[in-house]
Amino acid sequence: MNEILESLTKGIAVYETLRTYKGKPFAVNEHYQRLCKSLRYLNIEPPTFEEFEKLVYNNLSERIRIVYVYAGRLISYVFQESTENYNVDYVKIDFTSIRRADSNSIPPDLKSLGRPDIYLARLTKGDNYDVIMLGDKGQICEGTFSNIFIVKNGKFITPSLDSGILDGITRMYVIKYLKEVGYEVEERFVEPYEIFYADEVFLTHTSKGIVPVHQIGTMQTKSIELSSKLTLQFEEYIKWLL
Amino acid sequence: MNEILESLTKGIAVYETLRTYKGKPFAVNEHYQRLCKSLRYLNIEPPTFEEFEKLVYNNLSERIRIVYVYAGRLISYVFQESTENYNVDYVKIDFTSIRRADSNSIPPDLKSLGRPDIYLARLTKGDNYDVIMLGDKGQICEGTFSNIFIVKNGKFITPSLDSGILDGITRMYVIKYLKEVGYEVEERFVEPYEIFYADEVFLTHTSKGIVPVHQIGTMQTKSIELSSKLTLQFEEYIKWLL
Amino acid sequence: MNEILESLTKGIAVYETLRTYKGKPFAVNEHYQRLCKSLRYLNIEPPTFEEFEKLVYNNLSERIRIVYVYAGRLISYVFQESTENYNVDYVKIDFTSIRRADSNSIPPDLKSLGRPDIYLARLTKGDNYDVIMLGDKGQICEGTFSNIFIVKNGKFITPSLDSGILDGITRMYVIKYLKEVGYEVEERFVEPYEIFYADEVFLTHTSKGIVPVHQIGTMQTKSIELSSKLTLQFEEYIKWLL
Amino acid sequence: MNEILESLTKGIAVYETLRTYKGKPFAVNEHYQRLCKSLRYLNIEPPTFEEFEKLVYNNLSERIRIVYVYAGRLISYVFQESTENYNVDYVKIDFTSIRRADSNSIPPDLKSLGRPDIYLARLTKGDNYDVIMLGDKGQICEGTFSNIFIVKNGKFITPSLDSGILDGITRMYVIKYLKEVGYEVEERFVEPYEIFYADEVFLTHTSKGIVPVHQIGTMQTKSIELSSKLTLQFEEYIKWLL
Repeated sequence: MNEILESLTKGIAVYETLRTYKGKPFAVNEHYQRLCKSLRYLNIEPPTFEEFEKLVYNNLSERIRIVYVYAGRLISYVFQESTENYNVDYVKIDFTSIRRADSNSIPPDLKSLGRPDIYLARLTKGDNYDVIMLGDKGQICEGTFSNIFIVKNGKFITPSLDSGILDGITRMYVIKYLKEVGYEVEERFVEPYEIFYADEVFLTHTSKGIVPVHQIGTMQTKSIELSSKLTLQFEEYIKWLL
Repeated sequence: MNEILESLTKGIAVYETLRTYKGKPFAVNEHYQRLCKSLRYLNIEPPTFEEFEKLVYNNLSERIRIVYVYAGRLISYVFQESTENYNVDYVKIDFTSIRRADSNSIPPDLKSLGRPDIYLARLTKGDNYDVIMLGDKGQICEGTFSNIFIVKNGKFITPSLDSGILDGITRMYVIKYLKEVGYEVEERFVEPYEIFYADEVFLTHTSKGIVPVHQIGTMQTKSIELSSKLTLQFEEYIKWLL
Repeated sequence: MNEILESLTKGIAVYETLRTYKGKPFAVNEHYQRLCKSLRYLNIEPPTFEEFEKLVYNNLSERIRIVYVYAGRLISYVFQESTENYNVDYVKIDFTSIRRADSNSIPPDLKSLGRPDIYLARLTKGDNYDVIMLGDKGQICEGTFSNIFIVKNGKFITPSLDSGILDGITRMYVIKYLKEVGYEVEERFVEPYEIFYADEVFLTHTSKGIVPVHQIGTMQTKSIELSSKLTLQFEEYIKWLL
Repeated sequence: MNEILESLTKGIAVYETLRTYKGKPFAVNEHYQRLCKSLRYLNIEPPTFEEFEKLVYNNLSERIRIVYVYAGRLISYVFQESTENYNVDYVKIDFTSIRRADSNSIPPDLKSLGRPDIYLARLTKGDNYDVIMLGDKGQICEGTFSNIFIVKNGKFITPSLDSGILDGITRMYVIKYLKEVGYEVEERFVEPYEIFYADEVFLTHTSKGIVPVHQIGTMQTKSIELSSKLTLQFEEYIKWLL
């Protein structure tokens, strides 16, 4: 334990958070691949997939956070968490004044503990479900724990990876799902004002899938109809995938 | 212990590193003030000066790292470290391609554990004593654990705080010292090319005071004469201050 | 004439546009001061105030554009223009994707002919009265020929000069007027989303004074009541100042 | 003439400068293609290649500047210039503090008259042959009328187009030539400090081809041997191409 504490104090730790559906962990391989990326940024040899998988299955719960830290050798530990009981059908969000660190400072897909930008942004949440962080040029990036999509004229638009965002695994599955059922999805730089011109806005994150947004700051969104339908359909899709 | 581990995993920790000269800790009040700033960014009530001072005196060693983390209440712990035995009169530095996170993402004076930009920059050090991080516009910021000064035509130039740097306590004392002995010191945006036009270059950091630079990448600096003299004089000055 | 053409082709020209109210030119001294700034950026000795004033009075019309270009010596010429007959009480605006050049590239108060950023932004106007340009960090700057104000909870907010905007002379008089009648005016960085949370939005520019905004892109603004009242009051104020 | 003057005063003009070798204009098609790009940014229908070619051949001189400006219809005019008599084998350059306007403000390949960033940079030249402009992130872009190359360990490195530079036609031919004779050429982001670590540095521009750099600010470059050889060989290559 002391060894972990010293490593956390002097080094840097990376992590992944996995969701379990009906007792089965979701997207284990995708989380493993992303973990490997994080570790490679730190010049640390990743564990084997088998080691990672075993850790997941030995610690199953609704949501688990697996942390890796280096102390001469790679050490891992797990926190089991329950999904927060958000009894919400739709949520309110806002923008935060804390900008996401630029990708030439911190690679967006290095998922490490204690990122101050994200921590500070969370402190500004108030009564919002999540707050949206802008990037270095003012482009929309993502929430502190969610990705954002807008719907405009039947088309789905979401910030591209090179906007400086984490490649959210739920985000990826939502894009996959939308394309499979025939929608057009545009990944590109998104300006803050576009969110106000949108027909619908929704968030995506591991714990809840698709979350419709009915309010942005003091503005009501135009509709949550399509997003609400997609929330249910995506939940079915995920269960079907497992 | 478990409480600390969980807080480090889910939250963010701030710290200060203090140097001891001849058994006496240096600049305790300045470190305390900076710690308070860090904690206030996180909306955490700082400890009293008396609590901080007690912690310092109860853990005296050549160098101590005091960490504060929040877990419902403020928890602190200390690591004692010895000053690395750098038997060097002058050092080699270089630039790193990892940029310092911009101040609208992470306040430069929030001194927190696990900052990925600084950690990644350290990974690029190779055989350099330290590597210089540039800011969001390409301006010179600082090393991963040191501040940088250049000497040009008898004048001292160092990146200003609004370049996006930590207000290093040794940096502050060096500026104070230089002004007291009659030198002109300019704090401003410094461009990378200026370092190559300089007459002398030196670093400052807690553990070593003033460190002359004789080489930047593949380039020799013009001289280390004045810096070498200042190294000794500043050491005397610090001892005299205590 | 050939001399002017060659200078325009090989050099750079600066200008000021003045409005005449009831046969009297407005803010001649302010325009002269701003012209001097522009010329000094180019290391060109400005004309005397008397020369400038004479040029203005010899070319009086509803609106005059005075251009200065350097060809060994300073050459000036004037275009007389009529104020476009905008029979509008309120207008529609939008954002443009063309960013305003950053102040470390082009000083915002260098008012020169042929600035491509502003010209390109104008090309994106469509049916909008003006389009709003963002700055290098995504902050709101100004329109292509107007400044922007928002009203929120009885307070007036407008981008500060260090947002990278021209110090519009009408903007300055509007701020002066608002303060004189007892309003609070905040000059600071303004984020694009703030415009959607505002109670009212209006533009200011030389030819029309205060222009209420009733629509931003596809969104109606909440009200134009106060702005509409101010339009008339400010017109009276200007006439009274003359 | 008045029509041109009014258009230059109210609009924007684009241009190309062509060099003539032994009475034959060089790279007419490349200049035409680049002109078309410039005009398309402005939503202006370009002239036909035949019209452009005719204009070139009717105005042949050592160097001609062809300007296009829009006044209801496209108007063109030509200035004939002689190549400045630089009797130099190598040159001194420096950095300028004026940054090149970012590509989201002004497309780097919109070649228009009166760009203030470039004009202001020229004012800082002093006794330098040209000064190097950095981009919005501090990356090396180009000189005010030249492109820059460095040689390091037998490899050639030059800022990539997405560094925010004009696609210089001489630059393109130099890259083509270097590759044809078997050198490796890297186009990428180049940091200012790399120029000081280089074995050789040279500029390229229409009027002189390849120009070796022997001094950057107060620093001598290591060598101009290879660059000097290339200057002659490239001159031969161009003549052979015609």
